Amino acid sequence: MGQGRVLVVAGTHGNERNAPWLLEQWRQQPQLLDKAGLALQLEIGNPDALAANRRYIDHDLNRCFRLDWLNDPTRQEREVQRARQLLDRFGPQAPQACSVVIDLHSTTSAMGNSLVVYGRRPADLALAAGIQARLGLPLYLHEADRAQTGFMVECWPAGLVIEVGPVPQGVLNAAICRQTQLALEAALATLAQASAGVLCLPRSLQVHVHRGSVDLPRCAEGLPTAALHPLRQGRDWQPIAAGAHLFWLPSDGSQGFAPQEHPGLDEEALWPVFINEAAYEEKGIAFSLCRRELWPVQSSWAEALQSQFS
Amino acid sequence: MGQGRVLVVAGTHGNERNAPWLLEQWRQQPQLLDKAGLALQLEIGNPDALAANRRYIDHDLNRCFRLDWLNDPTRQEREVQRARQLLDRFGPQAPQACSVVIDLHSTTSAMGNSLVVYGRRPADLALAAGIQARLGLPLYLHEADRAQTGFMVECWPAGLVIEVGPVPQGVLNAAICRQTQLALEAALATLAQASAGVLCLPRSLQVHVHRGSVDLPRCAEGLPTAALHPLRQGRDWQPIAAGAHLFWLPSDGSQGFAPQEHPGLDEEALWPVFINEAAYEEKGIAFSLCRRELWPVQSSWAEALQSQFS
Repeated sequence: MGQGRVLVVAGTHGNERNAPWLLEQWRQQPQLLDKAGLALQLEIGNPDALAANRRYIDHDLNRCFRLDWLNDPTRQEREVQRARQLLDRFGPQAPQACSVVIDLHSTTSAMGNSLVVYGRRPADLALAAGIQARLGLPLYLHEADRAQTGFMVECWPAGLVIEVGPVPQGVLNAAICRQTQLALEAALATLAQASAGVLCLPRSLQVHVHRGSVDLPRCAEGLPTAALHPLRQGRDWQPIAAGAHLFWLPSDGSQGFAPQEHPGLDEEALWPVFINEAAYEEKGIAFSLCRRELWPVQSSWAEALQSQFS
Repeated sequence: MGQGRVLVVAGTHGNERNAPWLLEQWRQQPQLLDKAGLALQLEIGNPDALAANRRYIDHDLNRCFRLDWLNDPTRQEREVQRARQLLDRFGPQAPQACSVVIDLHSTTSAMGNSLVVYGRRPADLALAAGIQARLGLPLYLHEADRAQTGFMVECWPAGLVIEVGPVPQGVLNAAICRQTQLALEAALATLAQASAGVLCLPRSLQVHVHRGSVDLPRCAEGLPTAALHPLRQGRDWQPIAAGAHLFWLPSDGSQGFAPQEHPGLDEEALWPVFINEAAYEEKGIAFSLCRRELWPVQSSWAEALQSQFS
């Protein structure tokens, strides 16, 4: 156990510039960030990619935290090496061990100020519930997606992603910075309660459960034959009904949303997230779809998070 | 002279994805674009950068059209080579000569659907006036900027840039595509009139004349010590008054606009353009400032554009 030190990572993707800029400001002027009394480790996730203003150099760092890759000596991509280094320095068994990680991201999608957890670990859900109670931020639960694995926070006992948008890649934006800091401070306030053993959670947690992803229609050569319909752009977290405008054709036609054409989607998976995220084009994701659920908060969640500090 | 062939270039910057996507659609379905009867040459500006989803590989292609570089055999950057190739194939003296070039760009700034000309060539001003009469698009006249030179359109007898935003780099956006096509079709309709010798121009042209650029404040190491103020974000083409909020400090303070601190700016240069364009960070430009002027349209402008087709 890491005696409750909290790892705060910015710049896991090198072209998401706001959190790394904030982190540098906090390093130079520590009083700017309300740490709620916690011991923080501030770290740039992918310094090489940040210097190059690119998402990554060899491979997306936030898909490299897979045990099979980390333990495979033949995998020497720069980001795999960096994942090992972060774990060696700040992982649960490291000399400067951290037991919680907050990974700060931004997106070109209109996600607003939002949270992402990976799977249903009770400690993560406690942290998300504490932040949601403070700021009302929507939560995306990413799970059961075999095409997207190896996320950083999964390698620490607890943690989540703070995801803020829309902001173009490579752009510093004051409003995005402000939202990032607000969400981080809400996370730290929650963790400080957990550290003191007095974590107070709401009765329920609203969760958007990942149910699948939808790509643009493409021709045989892979080029998109349609764009997202203008009525979809910027409407993250707003349910889309079957038959609603989904794609826009260059002939000025429209193609409607037909859930049955997307295997694995269920009828209630109507809440889109990460609509038109620039970096997901190469992953074949125009947006993901969720079910919105209201979960009663379990007392075991608070215990799981508090145990990280004992 | 190129007998009036029109060169339409998309993807001069490889991470501006909308125009190249449109261009591919027009190649596959020529009836989608109203060519107004003109002979067009559709060309991807920087195919290598487009494939890499980066603005450029070695050097910004749209700063490589400088005679000193084009004629210097020691300059072998990929984009300098590509500039030579484009001129060899479609330049005024080429076998497939084009006398007009329309260069399609997008920007992370909220420029809307807009036009850029480089200097005060009468033929360019005629083309801009014809488009402005049709769609009312604002025009940015870039000149007298020794730090930014070597633009593509300067190497053809006539031409301009269509610049549409805001859209993140790497993102396909239907509204941006639609605006791009509308502006291009207005340009082609204007050129078709010129080609027929019946160019009809409005009485005046509204011009935003470049007067200088402003960077973020930076520390000795080059890192910005402030971001643009949220009240400036997205307010391209809207005048900024002296004393207005300009920069946002991480301590939540604000720094006002003080024109006298920016050498070369005059009192009437109050119209900002390219606010927070992602690609200009490396050029040290947070935004540029213009004077707004209303110019009477000269009869010599129409003659200059019509002569390209004779």
